[in-house]
Amino acid sequence: MPIVEVHILSGYDAEAKRRLGEALTDAVRFVVPAPPEAVTVMIHEMPGEHYYRGRTQRSGAPALADPKEIVRSYLLAMERRDIDTAQEMLGDGFVMQFPGTAPMSKLSELIEWAAPRYRSVTKTYEGFDAMQSSSDAAIVYARGTLSGVWPDGTDFEGIRFIDRFELIGGLITQQDVWNDIAEVRAST
Amino acid sequence: MPIVEVHILSGYDAEAKRRLGEALTDAVRFVVPAPPEAVTVMIHEMPGEHYYRGRTQRSGAPALADPKEIVRSYLLAMERRDIDTAQEMLGDGFVMQFPGTAPMSKLSELIEWAAPRYRSVTKTYEGFDAMQSSSDAAIVYARGTLSGVWPDGTDFEGIRFIDRFELIGGLITQQDVWNDIAEVRAST
Amino acid sequence: MPIVEVHILSGYDAEAKRRLGEALTDAVRFVVPAPPEAVTVMIHEMPGEHYYRGRTQRSGAPALADPKEIVRSYLLAMERRDIDTAQEMLGDGFVMQFPGTAPMSKLSELIEWAAPRYRSVTKTYEGFDAMQSSSDAAIVYARGTLSGVWPDGTDFEGIRFIDRFELIGGLITQQDVWNDIAEVRAST
Amino acid sequence: MPIVEVHILSGYDAEAKRRLGEALTDAVRFVVPAPPEAVTVMIHEMPGEHYYRGRTQRSGAPALADPKEIVRSYLLAMERRDIDTAQEMLGDGFVMQFPGTAPMSKLSELIEWAAPRYRSVTKTYEGFDAMQSSSDAAIVYARGTLSGVWPDGTDFEGIRFIDRFELIGGLITQQDVWNDIAEVRAST
Amino acid sequence: MPIVEVHILSGYDAEAKRRLGEALTDAVRFVVPAPPEAVTVMIHEMPGEHYYRGRTQRSGAPALADPKEIVRSYLLAMERRDIDTAQEMLGDGFVMQFPGTAPMSKLSELIEWAAPRYRSVTKTYEGFDAMQSSSDAAIVYARGTLSGVWPDGTDFEGIRFIDRFELIGGLITQQDVWNDIAEVRAST
Amino acid sequence: MPIVEVHILSGYDAEAKRRLGEALTDAVRFVVPAPPEAVTVMIHEMPGEHYYRGRTQRSGAPALADPKEIVRSYLLAMERRDIDTAQEMLGDGFVMQFPGTAPMSKLSELIEWAAPRYRSVTKTYEGFDAMQSSSDAAIVYARGTLSGVWPDGTDFEGIRFIDRFELIGGLITQQDVWNDIAEVRAST
Repeated sequence: MPIVEVHILSGYDAEAKRRLGEALTDAVRFVVPAPPEAVTVMIHEMPGEHYYRGRTQRSGAPALADPKEIVRSYLLAMERRDIDTAQEMLGDGFVMQFPGTAPMSKLSELIEWAAPRYRSVTKTYEGFDAMQSSSDAAIVYARGTLSGVWPDGTDFEGIRFIDRFELIGGLITQQDVWNDIAEVRAST
Repeated sequence: MPIVEVHILSGYDAEAKRRLGEALTDAVRFVVPAPPEAVTVMIHEMPGEHYYRGRTQRSGAPALADPKEIVRSYLLAMERRDIDTAQEMLGDGFVMQFPGTAPMSKLSELIEWAAPRYRSVTKTYEGFDAMQSSSDAAIVYARGTLSGVWPDGTDFEGIRFIDRFELIGGLITQQDVWNDIAEVRAST
Repeated sequence: MPIVEVHILSGYDAEAKRRLGEALTDAVRFVVPAPPEAVTVMIHEMPGEHYYRGRTQRSGAPALADPKEIVRSYLLAMERRDIDTAQEMLGDGFVMQFPGTAPMSKLSELIEWAAPRYRSVTKTYEGFDAMQSSSDAAIVYARGTLSGVWPDGTDFEGIRFIDRFELIGGLITQQDVWNDIAEVRAST
Repeated sequence: MPIVEVHILSGYDAEAKRRLGEALTDAVRFVVPAPPEAVTVMIHEMPGEHYYRGRTQRSGAPALADPKEIVRSYLLAMERRDIDTAQEMLGDGFVMQFPGTAPMSKLSELIEWAAPRYRSVTKTYEGFDAMQSSSDAAIVYARGTLSGVWPDGTDFEGIRFIDRFELIGGLITQQDVWNDIAEVRAST
Repeated sequence: MPIVEVHILSGYDAEAKRRLGEALTDAVRFVVPAPPEAVTVMIHEMPGEHYYRGRTQRSGAPALADPKEIVRSYLLAMERRDIDTAQEMLGDGFVMQFPGTAPMSKLSELIEWAAPRYRSVTKTYEGFDAMQSSSDAAIVYARGTLSGVWPDGTDFEGIRFIDRFELIGGLITQQDVWNDIAEVRAST
Repeated sequence: MPIVEVHILSGYDAEAKRRLGEALTDAVRFVVPAPPEAVTVMIHEMPGEHYYRGRTQRSGAPALADPKEIVRSYLLAMERRDIDTAQEMLGDGFVMQFPGTAPMSKLSELIEWAAPRYRSVTKTYEGFDAMQSSSDAAIVYARGTLSGVWPDGTDFEGIRFIDRFELIGGLITQQDVWNDIAEVRAST
């Protein structure tokens, strides 16, 4: 039966408000054992001239882009080896960790790392999980299975993977990847 | 500058309210680019006799336990091979998926699966991520490194892992595990 | 000194909001011994994209028509013997009860019942009372005096009557009538 | 989906708050076509030191008694011919109107009026309707059937009646009565 | 950390709302030891059809003009000896008190009073203080220094003064003046 | 018709809340032309565990003492030449300005300044005005008349004065004084 009211400055579009309504509903249900239909969210919007902090009128900032969509675009660009597009989505201090290698900070390193492992790879997604961490970073998980072509030209598919991303201000700052490639290779 | 107000029925303890305050703050910051100190949460508590839906007075339910703590306890019990304790934390339809094997539904299957892989294993945690999904399930991720003893008696350490859990009503219904064990074994 | 705030979805016209403001004021004064000017009502309107229940955006429904006005129109149509118009105002399962006869469900039965009782009748209203019942039905009372012409051609006037109506979804489902016609006839 | 919040001064008991919650729910449903479970009422209580009008702290008044219960008690006292008890429930300027007689202002007049009409009468209630009028008066309707003993000693039963009451400040100021007694007598 | 919400009827311009936001912030800080940035003010605006007191829709009145600006204009007009303009800013029962004379009610009296004291005078402001009193009057203080020309043609400057004004409904009803002119004259 | 709601952390006593209710009422009336009885203030109190800013629970600070009372006590102590008590009420950087002398920072300087001016002086108050400035300082004005004994032993009375004080954190940091002493002396 919880009722959530959130007061925000005007300027968010319908999509941002929908995401806000959903995130607040989920936040309540993380603690309160209520079915979804028992959670109500009301968004109260104010123009800047109705909001003062410290006697000073404030104005809103544009909503953050959906980090899930950013990650999805990034993974698609990487799959296409469109490094330039992917690079633009990375923030300062970006670091990525893949199985069996030290942390890397450049996408070109990743291409090199992948070369002896597979000729090509495609991701089939089973699900995404996204949340705000307690710090400035948003966290996105993408999981599913890999299919592709081994260096020897044979195909593979159905290999489980999971990627974890951190994003700050809409830019990816960290990527951690786990998968069963070595497991599968070892068993073949 | 967003201000969140949540109206709940009385009966939640300080810990549950703190978790609610944090979850609502994070939910706002998932969409609104505000620094933490710009997000205010006010919890308004009501006794049942102040709340009516459909002319009917309602009473609150106990807060959900922190799913992160449930997972932590479960992993500790498993590490100690305290199967009975771990078993009590599982919900109906529990299924788990580990690298290189089909989905399992019994903890005893897991013990068998692990036997030829390592003599013992201990988890060192680097972080937990927890959130409510859009369905009834809470999601918890635990990640870090494994250390332990191989079947041949030699030690290992620093092997990356990540576990994903789903919990419904405080019981674990799904566990998915990824790690670099095969990667490490292949390279040694 | 009570202050009522009601949050509704956008889409109600000024007339509906006025009726809502009045009904809420009266509801408070039914329990709290406050003079009218001590009761404040504020209506807060939200577009659908600001309201979520169970993560789902909701939209409002058109206001219910004023049941008092529906009853007034119905009684006027009946007085004019405009059965077609009156019939359209009746809901499923309509039943009416008049003095000295069994319950009737068709307006034509009423016409037959009235025939030996008076040639014509006109209602002068002293007052209407209207409220929502605890079920889906709105209740309307109309009371006043009857004037008209007896079957023998003589006139009558000032005979007290009261009608009770139930309406669901803006349609009349029940009509109960009491009056002093028999009392007056007996005494003449 | 309407949500009603009412701010009142502390001091109302659970029963008064329940009646307030119900009355506000019904008021909303009088205008907004929402099923009962879509209407939420939250009562916010304040001690006097949290409420100021015109810089002046205010304190609450005791809740009005349920007018339905007052009427029920009055009718019971009258049925028992307990005139003293009934008299104490009447307000200044009390007036009552029964079938076939001029308005009366004293309960003793009523006893005289009833004497030639029936030896005794008992009410079986089918329903009560109660509401606040737009003025200071609360309105209560009681309807059902009369049973009793005619002056000649024979019994009667199932005769429809309806009583309308006005109450101000918990005292009855007006009673209007309609029934089918004359109708029944005429047809027997 | 206080959060102030004020519900007003629509019709106030941005300037009036800014003044309201500031006045409410200052009011809180008069009692609560919070730094300015810890005080949030939200203004909620309602069209008349969303506000009912005593079942009656209310409409807002135009904001009061800033009394500080009224006083500033008045003082400027007086400095220019533009008596007509200054006179229009005075309310019924206006009274002024200057050093060394009885209360005066006409601006022409003031001109006469000033004649033997200085040929001309100009005000340099160090600060204004303005507030609402607990009655209908707004209070404005203006303080600073006087410069000008003595009757003998010599100049003076830097003489401290303070004026206190009361305004009701935007019109000045009282002016009290203190300054160091006599002090300075005595010491020269 | 404005309604003010203020949300504060628990811990303020009735006197502080009364002062808050008054200050908020006055703040509204500074801008909105409403009679006092049309301004409602509701104080909503929260325990710390219901309030979070930046995910962090906050606790309230004790209310500021009424600056008007502080000034009154200070002036009383000075009148009694109780310098020690008065001194304790002064903040860092205290400065005072009296007619016909340079700014002083020590109360002992003031005693010296006054010595040749009067033997003793007593204040009769006509009114106090107090407000929060837009900075951290509260402003208090005290005005009225002085009576006392001239250095030559003759009495005086009815001499107008006004004092302006600034207080930060409950300590007086500035005092400015104007009066008609020189005016009166010059005219005698």
